[in-house]
Amino acid sequence: MVYLDYSATTPVDRRVLESFDRTCLEYIGNPNSIHQEGVKSKKLLDAAVNQVADLLHVKNSEVIFTSGASEANNLAIKGVVNEYKDRGKTIITTKLEHSSILSCVNYLKQNGYNIVYVKINENGQVDLDDLKSKINDDTLLVSIAEVNSEIGITQDVDAIGKVLKEYKRVIFHVDGTQAVGKKPVNLENIDLYSFSGHKIYGLKGVGCLIKKENIELTPLIHGGKSQTKYRAGTPPLALIVSMAKALKLILSELDSNYEYVKSLKESLIKKLEKNELIHINSNDYSIPHVVNISIKGIKPETLLHALEEDEIYVSTKTACSQEDAISLSVYTITKDEELAKSSIRISLSHLTKQNEIDFFVDKLNEKIEKLISIRN
Amino acid sequence: MVYLDYSATTPVDRRVLESFDRTCLEYIGNPNSIHQEGVKSKKLLDAAVNQVADLLHVKNSEVIFTSGASEANNLAIKGVVNEYKDRGKTIITTKLEHSSILSCVNYLKQNGYNIVYVKINENGQVDLDDLKSKINDDTLLVSIAEVNSEIGITQDVDAIGKVLKEYKRVIFHVDGTQAVGKKPVNLENIDLYSFSGHKIYGLKGVGCLIKKENIELTPLIHGGKSQTKYRAGTPPLALIVSMAKALKLILSELDSNYEYVKSLKESLIKKLEKNELIHINSNDYSIPHVVNISIKGIKPETLLHALEEDEIYVSTKTACSQEDAISLSVYTITKDEELAKSSIRISLSHLTKQNEIDFFVDKLNEKIEKLISIRN
Repeated sequence: MVYLDYSATTPVDRRVLESFDRTCLEYIGNPNSIHQEGVKSKKLLDAAVNQVADLLHVKNSEVIFTSGASEANNLAIKGVVNEYKDRGKTIITTKLEHSSILSCVNYLKQNGYNIVYVKINENGQVDLDDLKSKINDDTLLVSIAEVNSEIGITQDVDAIGKVLKEYKRVIFHVDGTQAVGKKPVNLENIDLYSFSGHKIYGLKGVGCLIKKENIELTPLIHGGKSQTKYRAGTPPLALIVSMAKALKLILSELDSNYEYVKSLKESLIKKLEKNELIHINSNDYSIPHVVNISIKGIKPETLLHALEEDEIYVSTKTACSQEDAISLSVYTITKDEELAKSSIRISLSHLTKQNEIDFFVDKLNEKIEKLISIRN
Repeated sequence: MVYLDYSATTPVDRRVLESFDRTCLEYIGNPNSIHQEGVKSKKLLDAAVNQVADLLHVKNSEVIFTSGASEANNLAIKGVVNEYKDRGKTIITTKLEHSSILSCVNYLKQNGYNIVYVKINENGQVDLDDLKSKINDDTLLVSIAEVNSEIGITQDVDAIGKVLKEYKRVIFHVDGTQAVGKKPVNLENIDLYSFSGHKIYGLKGVGCLIKKENIELTPLIHGGKSQTKYRAGTPPLALIVSMAKALKLILSELDSNYEYVKSLKESLIKKLEKNELIHINSNDYSIPHVVNISIKGIKPETLLHALEEDEIYVSTKTACSQEDAISLSVYTITKDEELAKSSIRISLSHLTKQNEIDFFVDKLNEKIEKLISIRN
């Protein structure tokens, strides 16, 4: 099998799973219980919170565990709009966001909020002048993904955060789901930051929202005592521990993994460029881990299923996208409907081998030739 | 160790954990991905949904996996009030609910909803006449726990559901967290039903909301494709499979476990009744698994910490309650503030041994005598 869909989900690191299992078996108390077995669980919970906080250079009180990035994104956005109701009704975001952001703001739009999309330049970058021009007294929140999940385009969220610091009333949320574990992240100028376990070789069902001390949030899930007052429910101790472990492991190899994946990408691009039918949508701002291509006139689903005959697994758009839609991300960058209708995402990992890349490109060329000849 | 806090959380069944691990390692695809590895994961997801639906005699489309009962309760209540905004603003509930219900309705109260508490009779049962008299044209939702988590009092939610069927516009939600796996449940006359994995020897971080077909809900978590449109996010496949497994295992032994725990409880009550200082708050309507007692004049935290010197673990109120509050459940039943200030919850399981009960009562009597003598 040649799995090239690491941006959809990553295989779990066995050390993460071991840490999950050990926690399940050795820590039987509810961390909310006040007896020794509860206290023992609470101590481990605190240690996991502390580890995540340390790794991301934030305070322990700024870490909120959630069930995943979708919940973290919804908690950030709805939590802010419900908490700061009187401050404004305008949210600025981009057309490069994940469905959990776009669906969330669409829902808010139906409920009287004003959703403004910032201009994306030809290189895929947020236009800072356009962003500044769109901020007004009604602007409550700006939400921008650090790394786009389809094309891998990276925004300089630190620079955007610095610009936004000039607007005291505007809160800045960053969806970091596709950034954490792939590139160094800097949360200094960001108010809210979301990410997920299963994109960093951790488990599905756990995520995290970093919320800076000076920001308040209305919870999505109300209840009693929990890990934080912003998110009720019995803390899923083993999932939380597994998340801390996954983050620690992936960050410990960040630089060498990055360089390795970068070299894989360079080799992949070089090979893809030899085929004139392949249009490469990713650009110099894309993270090495994601290479998005289009082959005009070939339905991406057809190509995907052709590739899986050889046990090669790639993606059309993101896993969470609606199947019938064109790629909004590709369209936003290219303004070309044909490219947006025919895009394929190849996503790489430090686990990817050079011979997998070679095999993939050979098969891709073969399938394209066959599909084009059938069409003609 | 004598663990008598099974209502706070249960130790995981090793077979459940094995099924979680196997799923993590063997199913690497995101169930939302359309390639074979995704389809393989999706098939397993569908099988887990089907298993839960079969076990509870509902349709596959009526099963919504969540991160736990707190999320399920919040999704049920906020999902209904947001979806049926125009229908009314009154929610009827009881003072015997879990903090995830009480906090949720308190939040709604601050946002203009009208929260009405139905009368609880001396035996702890919902007063059906009072319930009927409180329903009016503004009533949108009735939310009642099947089994109270502190005293174990069981409501006849099937009978309540039948009464509510006469009011076509009223939606009926039941928090079944402390009922599922302990007693037979019947969802025929219930519109929405919540429960959790970690109370049935499953994992923390997964729960379920059963939502009947004719009911709509506004999601708490918006996003793209997922297990259902009511709850976005990458489906946590291994957690969902573990939940189906836990439910299957616990229901397969339901009757024999019930009879066994009932005999344990009878023996426990007989022993407790010998000590005049112990007031038993649980009654004939309480599930065998929960015995709530008060010792007037002794702070429950003091007694709890005295018992843990002998590695006996019981609870004051529920694990999720705020520590400084009196027990609202005990006060609702007894109308006695002294009892409500001094309650202890002993919760039993099919894993509890008779000699643990004997040891517990011996130690309890010893500690009470000592604490009373210090006080005097």
